[in-house]
Amino acid sequence: MTDFLPLFIEQLQSPTLGFLIGGIVVAALGSQLAIPDSIYKFISFFLLMKIGLTGGIAIRNSNFSEIILPALGAVGIGIVIVLISRYTLGKLPGISVPDAVATGGLFGAVSGSTLAAVLPQLDSAKVPYEAWTAALYPFMDIPALVAAIVMASLYIGKKTGKTTEKVEIWPIIKESLQSSAVTAMLLGVALGILTKPEPVYESFFNPLFRGFLAVLMIIMGMEAAQRMNELRKVAQWFAIYAFFAPIVHGFLGFGVGLILHKITGFSIGGSVVLAVIAASSSDISGPPTLRAGIPSANPSAYIGASTAIGTPVAIAICIPLFIGIAETMLGR
Amino acid sequence: MTDFLPLFIEQLQSPTLGFLIGGIVVAALGSQLAIPDSIYKFISFFLLMKIGLTGGIAIRNSNFSEIILPALGAVGIGIVIVLISRYTLGKLPGISVPDAVATGGLFGAVSGSTLAAVLPQLDSAKVPYEAWTAALYPFMDIPALVAAIVMASLYIGKKTGKTTEKVEIWPIIKESLQSSAVTAMLLGVALGILTKPEPVYESFFNPLFRGFLAVLMIIMGMEAAQRMNELRKVAQWFAIYAFFAPIVHGFLGFGVGLILHKITGFSIGGSVVLAVIAASSSDISGPPTLRAGIPSANPSAYIGASTAIGTPVAIAICIPLFIGIAETMLGR
Amino acid sequence: MTDFLPLFIEQLQSPTLGFLIGGIVVAALGSQLAIPDSIYKFISFFLLMKIGLTGGIAIRNSNFSEIILPALGAVGIGIVIVLISRYTLGKLPGISVPDAVATGGLFGAVSGSTLAAVLPQLDSAKVPYEAWTAALYPFMDIPALVAAIVMASLYIGKKTGKTTEKVEIWPIIKESLQSSAVTAMLLGVALGILTKPEPVYESFFNPLFRGFLAVLMIIMGMEAAQRMNELRKVAQWFAIYAFFAPIVHGFLGFGVGLILHKITGFSIGGSVVLAVIAASSSDISGPPTLRAGIPSANPSAYIGASTAIGTPVAIAICIPLFIGIAETMLGR
Repeated sequence: MTDFLPLFIEQLQSPTLGFLIGGIVVAALGSQLAIPDSIYKFISFFLLMKIGLTGGIAIRNSNFSEIILPALGAVGIGIVIVLISRYTLGKLPGISVPDAVATGGLFGAVSGSTLAAVLPQLDSAKVPYEAWTAALYPFMDIPALVAAIVMASLYIGKKTGKTTEKVEIWPIIKESLQSSAVTAMLLGVALGILTKPEPVYESFFNPLFRGFLAVLMIIMGMEAAQRMNELRKVAQWFAIYAFFAPIVHGFLGFGVGLILHKITGFSIGGSVVLAVIAASSSDISGPPTLRAGIPSANPSAYIGASTAIGTPVAIAICIPLFIGIAETMLGR
Repeated sequence: MTDFLPLFIEQLQSPTLGFLIGGIVVAALGSQLAIPDSIYKFISFFLLMKIGLTGGIAIRNSNFSEIILPALGAVGIGIVIVLISRYTLGKLPGISVPDAVATGGLFGAVSGSTLAAVLPQLDSAKVPYEAWTAALYPFMDIPALVAAIVMASLYIGKKTGKTTEKVEIWPIIKESLQSSAVTAMLLGVALGILTKPEPVYESFFNPLFRGFLAVLMIIMGMEAAQRMNELRKVAQWFAIYAFFAPIVHGFLGFGVGLILHKITGFSIGGSVVLAVIAASSSDISGPPTLRAGIPSANPSAYIGASTAIGTPVAIAICIPLFIGIAETMLGR
Repeated sequence: MTDFLPLFIEQLQSPTLGFLIGGIVVAALGSQLAIPDSIYKFISFFLLMKIGLTGGIAIRNSNFSEIILPALGAVGIGIVIVLISRYTLGKLPGISVPDAVATGGLFGAVSGSTLAAVLPQLDSAKVPYEAWTAALYPFMDIPALVAAIVMASLYIGKKTGKTTEKVEIWPIIKESLQSSAVTAMLLGVALGILTKPEPVYESFFNPLFRGFLAVLMIIMGMEAAQRMNELRKVAQWFAIYAFFAPIVHGFLGFGVGLILHKITGFSIGGSVVLAVIAASSSDISGPPTLRAGIPSANPSAYIGASTAIGTPVAIAICIPLFIGIAETMLGR
């Protein structure tokens, strides 16, 4: 513990976090600063392509079978996160089950920006990890969204007595895979495996990664401050859930990572990536899927909880926390 | 031939082509991935400025008279390409002469993205070329568009008996020169000749070139897949023309380049650039000029043929083909 | 003087100026080239963040008390510039006092693009300056806008006899601080002081600065050419004022800088920055504040004067002029 605290505090001073807080402060002070939406879309595309390329190049140069167990772990975590929301948030007074399950689905789904934030911080802290861990993204993202929509449909079906209606799972999976975030990452993975993108990677995607990430953090911070108003309109339980869920999910992911570490030699750094993927909540690709899949849930509740509190907690607390723990375990 | 095949296959594995095919596949699978239009416009501007600056700096440091014969060759190729379309595509059953000539004009005009794609691949293959060859762009682009509009007007005038109407050539030339693609390139050439842009060139335009080109290739691929539907609506002769024309035009350009090689010492690499300029077909600047100049031609035919088939064939087949031939001739 | 002329001429050949003139020429020739507005906004944000970060990192590593006297000097210059416009331009026949004072406010306010242009040219000329001088921006910008609005209100109040109406100063200051340009720079300063943004700064903001500045210069040039038409509609005194004001204000700023040089050891290069901040006129953040604060003033007059003539004169004449003078004083 005495080893851990200074490492945690050092992680808190990272520029990534500074840019996030800067964005929150700027928006809270009512600044007219705005990064155009097209720039935001390009930056998201750029970061996820880069993460995908890194993963694809790593998979090309590694043993494909290594990825199977961690991928199964990611699927399990995604489903468990939705179950947790169903039986904690969903049991609280004044919270409807569809709202609880939709929020759990969004917190089980993955944020590309949070994933983009943890990787350079692991590099800076010199904690090694398997580069393909980023490719675990869709293995947690899609099961969480599918589980949330299925659970909400079963609940509504039971309540209204229409138990005959079957939930179509394939359209949910397809929609998730076709979302721009997952497409960009999978395109990067495919190009990394099948072509030799190293000249483009070294001259463009790698050097500009930290800079575009910093700009994205400012955008995420401004977005969080703006969503705070929406969150005020719904029950405060959503805010409490949004604060603690990333930390609980992070420990769940880290625990699964450590079990894999014992069994297969999966790295401690890889466990940090798995923890942060679990801690993150989707801000871009998840909401439209949930809006279509659970139309009775209130978007102000789940989007407000995720964007205003979940993402800042994942970036500002969970990333430093798990890197600090990893450094302590590695005996720094 | 046994020397050529492995060189051709190696060229097919270039990242440029991978990104193009990636874009086609992503759009064909119905992904919601989209690069915002403003990013596309900026990338086009960036690439053509960079090509122009490279050319301008090269012209400043070279003998201006060298460029005269290749420029005349480019003018001739642009006009011949339109004549070919008039007397091949235009003679086929069910094809109107204005449609054929407009398609020929677009295939004679030049694609900035194809031009942007060939240059780094020549660099990677270490095939030397005169850096000013990119400046041949407008010398083929403008004559092709002018020839197409003049031929269509003469044909329509003869058919309707109104032979008195004169075709105004200067407005067509002016509109081409004022198009954003040609302006960006000529602005780069002028700044390269008249100022000393080396600090900006070395810190910005040169290092980011490959990366923005890769992003543009994804956009071109997605665009090609989307245009395929439009092409299905018109006679299939357009698809057949669009597949073979870039290859035929490429050999025409390469042949002119080799004649210049014998006469003036123009490089083999420069002949490849000339071949690819001839093989390319305009996707951005040509269509509006043609739409205004030949209003009776069907844009689905010429834009569909150029974007859905012509540009992918030029990038995916012609660039590897002519670099492979050049490497064989250089005795690699 | 014989020392100064060659140095001045060399400064005139800088790429920054070339790109500005390129933009003017391109727009004047009627080209359809356009850099999308979202790109323009991102570039402005990028450049001001970078200037702010540079300043913030410099302040972190320096003595904060150094900045107090130059900041007071900047406040004074901002107010004096408005007074000059009130008693020169405002006394001319056919010029209304609110129009004169609004124009003075815009010329006292600061242009982020002009500030972005002078810094790399000082670096290239190897004239040293305190990196925090860029942080003087808001100290001149805000007092000039406040002074203009207060003077216009007092004049209108006196004329209409409604002297009871009090001018609210705090909303004007708040609006200026919340403008995207000032926010971006202050955010950069804050992040530079409070976090350690060096990895992002070195990999992103510093290397891309010159390139994005070059693109911005093209945009400013095109904008200047387009605004010229608006300026033609108002009294030609505005054009004459707009040509001479940047030079007069520049000498005012340089003089204050030299006094500080004698008293506190403020550098000659810092005096050049102060001169160029004084010479510059606001193109982005100032106009909306003035439009709200002095609704009776004619925006064609003050925006036309600033964008079509003021900014080009500041970049094309004042920057080379004061760097040339500084080099002469440093005995190059």
